[in-house]
Amino acid sequence: MDEQKRTELDQLGEFELINRLTNKFKTQNNSSLYGVGDDAAVINSNDKEAILASTDALIEGVHFDLTYVPLSFLGYKAISVNVSDICAMNAKPEQVLVSVAVSNRFSVEALEELYNGIAEACEFYKVDLVGGDTTSSTSGLIINVTVLGKANKNKITYRSGAKEYDLIVASGDLGSAYMGLQVLEREKMVFDENPSIQPDLDGNDYIIQRQLKPQARLDIVKQLEELEILPSSMIDISDGLASEVMHICKSSKKGCVLYMEKLPIDTKTVSAALDFNLDHNTCALNGGEDYELLFTISQKDFDKIKKHPNFSVIGHVTSENEGMYLVDKNDSAIALKAQGWKHF
Amino acid sequence: MDEQKRTELDQLGEFELINRLTNKFKTQNNSSLYGVGDDAAVINSNDKEAILASTDALIEGVHFDLTYVPLSFLGYKAISVNVSDICAMNAKPEQVLVSVAVSNRFSVEALEELYNGIAEACEFYKVDLVGGDTTSSTSGLIINVTVLGKANKNKITYRSGAKEYDLIVASGDLGSAYMGLQVLEREKMVFDENPSIQPDLDGNDYIIQRQLKPQARLDIVKQLEELEILPSSMIDISDGLASEVMHICKSSKKGCVLYMEKLPIDTKTVSAALDFNLDHNTCALNGGEDYELLFTISQKDFDKIKKHPNFSVIGHVTSENEGMYLVDKNDSAIALKAQGWKHF
Repeated sequence: MDEQKRTELDQLGEFELINRLTNKFKTQNNSSLYGVGDDAAVINSNDKEAILASTDALIEGVHFDLTYVPLSFLGYKAISVNVSDICAMNAKPEQVLVSVAVSNRFSVEALEELYNGIAEACEFYKVDLVGGDTTSSTSGLIINVTVLGKANKNKITYRSGAKEYDLIVASGDLGSAYMGLQVLEREKMVFDENPSIQPDLDGNDYIIQRQLKPQARLDIVKQLEELEILPSSMIDISDGLASEVMHICKSSKKGCVLYMEKLPIDTKTVSAALDFNLDHNTCALNGGEDYELLFTISQKDFDKIKKHPNFSVIGHVTSENEGMYLVDKNDSAIALKAQGWKHF
Repeated sequence: MDEQKRTELDQLGEFELINRLTNKFKTQNNSSLYGVGDDAAVINSNDKEAILASTDALIEGVHFDLTYVPLSFLGYKAISVNVSDICAMNAKPEQVLVSVAVSNRFSVEALEELYNGIAEACEFYKVDLVGGDTTSSTSGLIINVTVLGKANKNKITYRSGAKEYDLIVASGDLGSAYMGLQVLEREKMVFDENPSIQPDLDGNDYIIQRQLKPQARLDIVKQLEELEILPSSMIDISDGLASEVMHICKSSKKGCVLYMEKLPIDTKTVSAALDFNLDHNTCALNGGEDYELLFTISQKDFDKIKKHPNFSVIGHVTSENEGMYLVDKNDSAIALKAQGWKHF
């Protein structure tokens, strides 16, 4: 390789890299209904149903810092973030396979803590641990979870189905997990400088919980079913709202208008952002790890959700050539930019 | 955790550890037909068929050494070892999800090399890449593959089905991948001491190929089908024959007798073992990564395979209280011991 061209990983974005690595693959089996490019793959099961599959790795030093993340919470989170990918397809999770690689600085008891969190999440989401792999690593802790889910084929929602004039809806609130991370990072710095100082997490329980123990919104999938709403498109918000809206728009070949004043932001997120001199709207737009659902619905379904505390209509879908915009509090339209997460 | 008991990971065997971590999990979904404890999990698909799922991680510094493993071979191997788990259930692989974590010492071109190998294997096994995750790692390269397969429910073979008097059969030959590893490790040492010396791999192509680019025996699964043989139990030989025979016996609550003189060992493995002052039978029994299939069949099927070059009858199943023995060339019965791989 030495004399050949060397392109650094950070020269490409994550999605460009994935595209470059996977575009040479061709589908050979009829059972592969949908492959790379959405929150989960879709595999034929029977006439009515499909099986959904998704995989996600959490890597020490990249995705988590064990200085402030309890192992049981980490186990719980590893399941949540994967279950969230199945929810984003409007499906229900049923099985997980968990690969764990650890160095010998971890004890059996530490791994049991991790698996206690995994077990708690599995019970909560009614998911079965059906397989895995346990091996050693040369340095840190690596958790790779694959989740399988099930859905009626006619209920599966892709990123690509948004239609012009559809409403853009977000579940829950945004930016809180990001602010939780800021608080944890601050207390870590204080602790590193003076280990005798106890962490000051007072009043930040909510945002810290959102960071350390995120919940996949399986409840939202069930509510949509009860309300008889079939979203035209859906994605989970893992990399920040702006990035996810843009995924939906690009996959659907549409544009959008979002309204800043409609962004659902908890008061605790607002006050933490104030503490850190951050703009809470930016946190909601570009902070990651909310694991809320972002979806589009037909306007005719508006009445079904308008009074529902779990749902916020934050904008609407436009035609592709109208672009992707955010209207701020001064009524100025700003072109959306996705910052998402830079992994390299 | 500090004041609590600390059990080191290497105090438990791999299987004891997995058992301790997973025994608290309860199955909650009817679709989970079989969970932890075999080569793959079994998930209900429709009246006739089930979906098989398995996951395996390859970790730099633990499972491979990039000094002598070309990245494209590594990609191929990552798929092979996972496909092998599906073959071990007498099923056919259909999809893979590939998670890759890399540090920035890797270039985009290096990752493309890896994916070239993955693509070659996917095409060879007729498997579709349907998902994955690409992220950064703090140090080395980590590849986690999840493979999904399909089988008629009445054809799935578990480890637990061996019956007394069944014949024990191995595909291909054993110990060659282990000898390939010895040659590669030797040449690495020579190179480390004197980088101007070219590696001496002459005459060792076969065993090196077996180590670097193992083939999952999907062809054997198809041959068994053509021969109308349904094995009573099956496992793939990844940790050494002795360890795998013991898995089948323990799962099936049976004993066994293996005959040393029946072990299928290639002449190239024998001569390489001689070079290294190793006993080739020990290499076949305890060397790893053969990825051959080990299975048990009813005696009535013997005629169907007796002239088949791919199959070697190496022993038979006995009752549990007769124990697990190897008969050596002096007709002495030696209790089987599994060395397998120590990962911690």
